[in-house]
Amino acid sequence: MKTFDLIEKKKNGGELTEGELAFFVRGATSGEIPDYQLSAMLMAICLRGMTDGETAVLTREMANSGETMDLDSLGIGDGSCDKHSTGGVGDKTTLIVAPAAAACGVRVVKMSGRGLGATGGTADKLESIPGFSCSLTTGRFVSLVKENGVAVACQGDELAPADKRLYALRDVTATVDSIPLIASSVMCKKLASGAHSIVLDVKYGSGAFMKTADEAEALAHLMVKIGEAHGRRMSVTATDMNRPLGFAVGNILEVNEAVRVLRGEESGELFDLSVRLTAEMVRLALGKDGDSSEKAAREAILTGAAYEKFLTLVEAQGGDATPLKAGGYYLVPAAERYEFRAEKDGYFTSPDAGLTGKASVALGAGRAKKGDAVDPAAGILLHKKDGERVRAGEVTAEIFAPDKEKLRDGAELMKKAFAAVS
Amino acid sequence: MKTFDLIEKKKNGGELTEGELAFFVRGATSGEIPDYQLSAMLMAICLRGMTDGETAVLTREMANSGETMDLDSLGIGDGSCDKHSTGGVGDKTTLIVAPAAAACGVRVVKMSGRGLGATGGTADKLESIPGFSCSLTTGRFVSLVKENGVAVACQGDELAPADKRLYALRDVTATVDSIPLIASSVMCKKLASGAHSIVLDVKYGSGAFMKTADEAEALAHLMVKIGEAHGRRMSVTATDMNRPLGFAVGNILEVNEAVRVLRGEESGELFDLSVRLTAEMVRLALGKDGDSSEKAAREAILTGAAYEKFLTLVEAQGGDATPLKAGGYYLVPAAERYEFRAEKDGYFTSPDAGLTGKASVALGAGRAKKGDAVDPAAGILLHKKDGERVRAGEVTAEIFAPDKEKLRDGAELMKKAFAAVS
Repeated sequence: MKTFDLIEKKKNGGELTEGELAFFVRGATSGEIPDYQLSAMLMAICLRGMTDGETAVLTREMANSGETMDLDSLGIGDGSCDKHSTGGVGDKTTLIVAPAAAACGVRVVKMSGRGLGATGGTADKLESIPGFSCSLTTGRFVSLVKENGVAVACQGDELAPADKRLYALRDVTATVDSIPLIASSVMCKKLASGAHSIVLDVKYGSGAFMKTADEAEALAHLMVKIGEAHGRRMSVTATDMNRPLGFAVGNILEVNEAVRVLRGEESGELFDLSVRLTAEMVRLALGKDGDSSEKAAREAILTGAAYEKFLTLVEAQGGDATPLKAGGYYLVPAAERYEFRAEKDGYFTSPDAGLTGKASVALGAGRAKKGDAVDPAAGILLHKKDGERVRAGEVTAEIFAPDKEKLRDGAELMKKAFAAVS
Repeated sequence: MKTFDLIEKKKNGGELTEGELAFFVRGATSGEIPDYQLSAMLMAICLRGMTDGETAVLTREMANSGETMDLDSLGIGDGSCDKHSTGGVGDKTTLIVAPAAAACGVRVVKMSGRGLGATGGTADKLESIPGFSCSLTTGRFVSLVKENGVAVACQGDELAPADKRLYALRDVTATVDSIPLIASSVMCKKLASGAHSIVLDVKYGSGAFMKTADEAEALAHLMVKIGEAHGRRMSVTATDMNRPLGFAVGNILEVNEAVRVLRGEESGELFDLSVRLTAEMVRLALGKDGDSSEKAAREAILTGAAYEKFLTLVEAQGGDATPLKAGGYYLVPAAERYEFRAEKDGYFTSPDAGLTGKASVALGAGRAKKGDAVDPAAGILLHKKDGERVRAGEVTAEIFAPDKEKLRDGAELMKKAFAAVS
């Protein structure tokens, strides 16, 4: 079998066989297939597409390209559930949903990646808490899940290495936004990490990879098919990401907002989505019906059980929970700060999510490229809800950055984000 | 400007600007753009196409990526003409046309590449003559053209280095068969080498890159546009390549067949095409009308003037013309030989050109990959014309190879080449 022939077949719109996809993934994993052939194939897949059958095989082969976790043999299979968002701006739901589902009795085995671009990563957010670490050995991960019902770990390099190599190339060759490639990249890691149930939140809109609800539906449908083909219980929700989710964008800012929701201090769309996703985890993992799952999820947050679990999670993974236990928030000061103020009386309009995401990267809260450091304190804090009344001169938003240059670049982009919706 | 953005633009079907194409070619030349981004772009171009305007700019930028020859300042601009075939099986017309046009007074400045795949290169064919070399300095090339009216040189590494890098990648990423990429690759070298007139022969059929006459027409039309946009006089002919051209395929075998035509010992399609292409060179380069150009071309061959010029060319570039001057041919013995014989009385059908080309590579006459050595004696010699009467047991074809394994592989493919047309 020759890589050249597989590229040519896909270029001409052909369907790759199981054997051909296995050969391709093996070559990507071992390094035998050079980057330039991988990227030509990725572009051909982008433009020619893949059948659902091809995508399922590609996903399986990528999942099997490295270590796979058998949660049953590790004693944490029953009731296990993972949750994943395809990435949104200000999406800190995992910080709320993971402890909430655990408080309901779900075994939350959350694998998280580092953020890239406008999309923050859960690991980055949690690690903005002083001391917190998502780098867990398998043994430690398993014992935390057994003990507390929840742990959040960074995917190690052993998990789906084929995906790592392909993703790194997609990121620099404009081949990220392909539905089969996104579906296989997300699902191979979920399959390899072994949770029996998987709850996915597919974002669409200006702040997401998928621009329309239709694309998001197509991606969601495909991921459900892949998961079910491999014996997983699947739930996929498609949610709007044209405006940032909630008020905060940026690592410690988002942690503090999650704390507010967990303490019952903030209601609205973030609370509602968190309840909905927690309920899906309860329904899938514990086999409850929709209504009682929703009730359990809501109560877990409103009774404070979810917040207690959050504090447990923070301390179990080395984080300092003292400020929270004292009733406060994490105070991580940023060197530079800028306020947006209303020019005249009127109504506040939440900024465009895509541009807000770019602003957060410019401010230092996200990574422009892999390996960049993220600043825990950088980001954006909206002071008003969409449609809320504002008076001239009132502060509508603050932005934070580690230096003046980043502040200026971020402010520039935030101006555009506000202008785009006015 | 970022390479990523250009790839994304082309992936989405956008038209690249002059500045963007210049940036891309500069990055390809300097090595600043890595292979994996170049190949992603090439695949996107393959599948999304390019406008004629984009192709003309790409060609110009590639031509200017290295040395360019100004034939006027070198004193050989007037009446200068280059001839190029897009590559066929058994296409040795340049060996006839170059001296014939020179005999008519054209300044034949022939730049040739090495052959790759089933398509032989003129340089390989001429260098199968003992002593012959196509590696000429610019000074030597110019003085030979001044003296004899003809020289055949290998393109140096300084000529269109961007094309060299892109072609090497196209060859291994299944992105060769794109009309804009083929047109720009051929034409950038023609523009850089500076001939005022360019005669192109675009092949189509099983033995050519272009499979249909329509594709060949499209490619021909595009190359004319590019050349004329850069002030060159252009003539493009599209010719059938479903059967090998003439009787011989393989380096010294083709030289000997060209000698036969030049001596008036062989008529038929090879003679006819050679007259036609020579006439086009005369018409373009010397500004004669079609009829008198054709007359001049035919007479150059029939009077022996073209053959005299061929002998001059051979000796001027270090080749041994002794066997020819003694009335014979080049005898370069092959280690292994196999005869095909007619199984029954009937009519000979010329083999499929595509498979014959593959057989010639298997026999050692062509390169499977860049840098491979070619065997001067290897190849295929047909003994019959298409449609000629044959009797059972008569030899219809011979094949030659340097060893038994190559002979067996080549014989296998030649059987398929005959079977494909019967």
